[in-house]
Amino acid sequence: MSKSTKIKNRLIDRIKPDVGFIRIIGMKNFSYKNGFASGKLRIRKEHLNPNGVVHGGVIYSFIDTLMGIALASILKKDDTCTTIEIQITYLNALNKGTIYAEAEVINQGRQIAFIKGSAKDEKGKLISHATGSFYISRSKR
Amino acid sequence: MSKSTKIKNRLIDRIKPDVGFIRIIGMKNFSYKNGFASGKLRIRKEHLNPNGVVHGGVIYSFIDTLMGIALASILKKDDTCTTIEIQITYLNALNKGTIYAEAEVINQGRQIAFIKGSAKDEKGKLISHATGSFYISRSKR
Amino acid sequence: MSKSTKIKNRLIDRIKPDVGFIRIIGMKNFSYKNGFASGKLRIRKEHLNPNGVVHGGVIYSFIDTLMGIALASILKKDDTCTTIEIQITYLNALNKGTIYAEAEVINQGRQIAFIKGSAKDEKGKLISHATGSFYISRSKR
Amino acid sequence: MSKSTKIKNRLIDRIKPDVGFIRIIGMKNFSYKNGFASGKLRIRKEHLNPNGVVHGGVIYSFIDTLMGIALASILKKDDTCTTIEIQITYLNALNKGTIYAEAEVINQGRQIAFIKGSAKDEKGKLISHATGSFYISRSKR
Repeated sequence: MSKSTKIKNRLIDRIKPDVGFIRIIGMKNFSYKNGFASGKLRIRKEHLNPNGVVHGGVIYSFIDTLMGIALASILKKDDTCTTIEIQITYLNALNKGTIYAEAEVINQGRQIAFIKGSAKDEKGKLISHATGSFYISRSKR
Repeated sequence: MSKSTKIKNRLIDRIKPDVGFIRIIGMKNFSYKNGFASGKLRIRKEHLNPNGVVHGGVIYSFIDTLMGIALASILKKDDTCTTIEIQITYLNALNKGTIYAEAEVINQGRQIAFIKGSAKDEKGKLISHATGSFYISRSKR
Repeated sequence: MSKSTKIKNRLIDRIKPDVGFIRIIGMKNFSYKNGFASGKLRIRKEHLNPNGVVHGGVIYSFIDTLMGIALASILKKDDTCTTIEIQITYLNALNKGTIYAEAEVINQGRQIAFIKGSAKDEKGKLISHATGSFYISRSKR
Repeated sequence: MSKSTKIKNRLIDRIKPDVGFIRIIGMKNFSYKNGFASGKLRIRKEHLNPNGVVHGGVIYSFIDTLMGIALASILKKDDTCTTIEIQITYLNALNKGTIYAEAEVINQGRQIAFIKGSAKDEKGKLISHATGSFYISRSKR
């Protein structure tokens, strides 16, 4: 396999906003750099739960995805990662507008990375806070 | 307002599989009784993440929803609940078949409920484990 | 009961470094202000676990205590608080020197507060990160 | 190094109730078998927090220790483990009597183990529930 093909196979290159569950959630315009990722999500009617506010799973999926992107952005090609656990805390409810979320790798060991994430509303009010531990599978070279 | 109308407004009655984010996730055939809820979800291509396995947000959203149903099933009419926090741990990955999940209220105080949830594959292998704390708003009567 | 007696009974005034489990842990020189608390702890031989590094329970107890102090510092007199849950993540091990920890109230609702905490070594390296949800019992006046 | 010396060096053999922080907490009579561990702890005055109930750090340290013992009991000699994260939820407060706690390894992968723990009072009432993820360092043979 040529080097360029290998690079195309990097985890970060396989993350696209119009594929799979990322498309379903409706996350848009994500960007990443050096262990940091951010994005936004316009609240649609189908994001709401029976209480009429954004379903916790939408915000979770949004932050979880950004955590994966933040970590993928600093992994070497052929390294992969899986989520060990994520805890999310909900601080304020939201029923319309746009959610802005971000994730940042706080600590990267050889096998375990620790990542923080958060979501805010349009005025910058904190909606949710999350932390997660990820397992890194290092490629053997 | 008549009593029957009030009952129609109970949280548990507003939870329907074909509405909002519950429909998007694709959860089906959920049932509940006395603080316990269960359901199943057939894995579709759009549930996958860039690694080719079910996105953590799908399993999270599935369990989170069942936790809410389990708690709603024992709330008095007019009581409502909100998620304080949920932690989910991923034990095994999955890329096809059906996911079976359940949630159970372990402790219900006056204001805080503690709920456990889990997801398994078709053979009963544990895929994810979760715990959550919920805040209960008691109606004043 | 006189007003001054009442003030003496405030939760924050009952927190003393030489009483109960706070003394056992050996936390010293804590300070607090406006929802923020910090302290230090000199590692002693009895803080170690069978692996020869500081027992996770020492760091947990240290941060948990500072979280309680941070929250108590902004509660009104007669208000009390209890821990709903705390998650702690261990990033680096430590076997000697002094641990510096701090806690900060990130969000205070009417009944629930969300608090972040962390512990660092003498060089500022992050040892542990924690988040917690606390329940606030408001006094009725 | 002889085989018997090696066995003496196993993690599980280095765990003793009268050493380090385990002695400080006052845990007694622990036992373990096949990924399960249990013990008891008699509440003393120095375990209390300024609210007059058992400090959350005591219960945490107790369960954390049992989690380590439960995992150590199924590790091969020369394997070691470290805590990635633990979340503990407090369900009921306690101010006297004996606490009974236990921990059980729910899932053991090659590098990550998932462990549940709980603490109860003398009548079997659930005091705390905890889950933790541990990293296993496998010895190279």
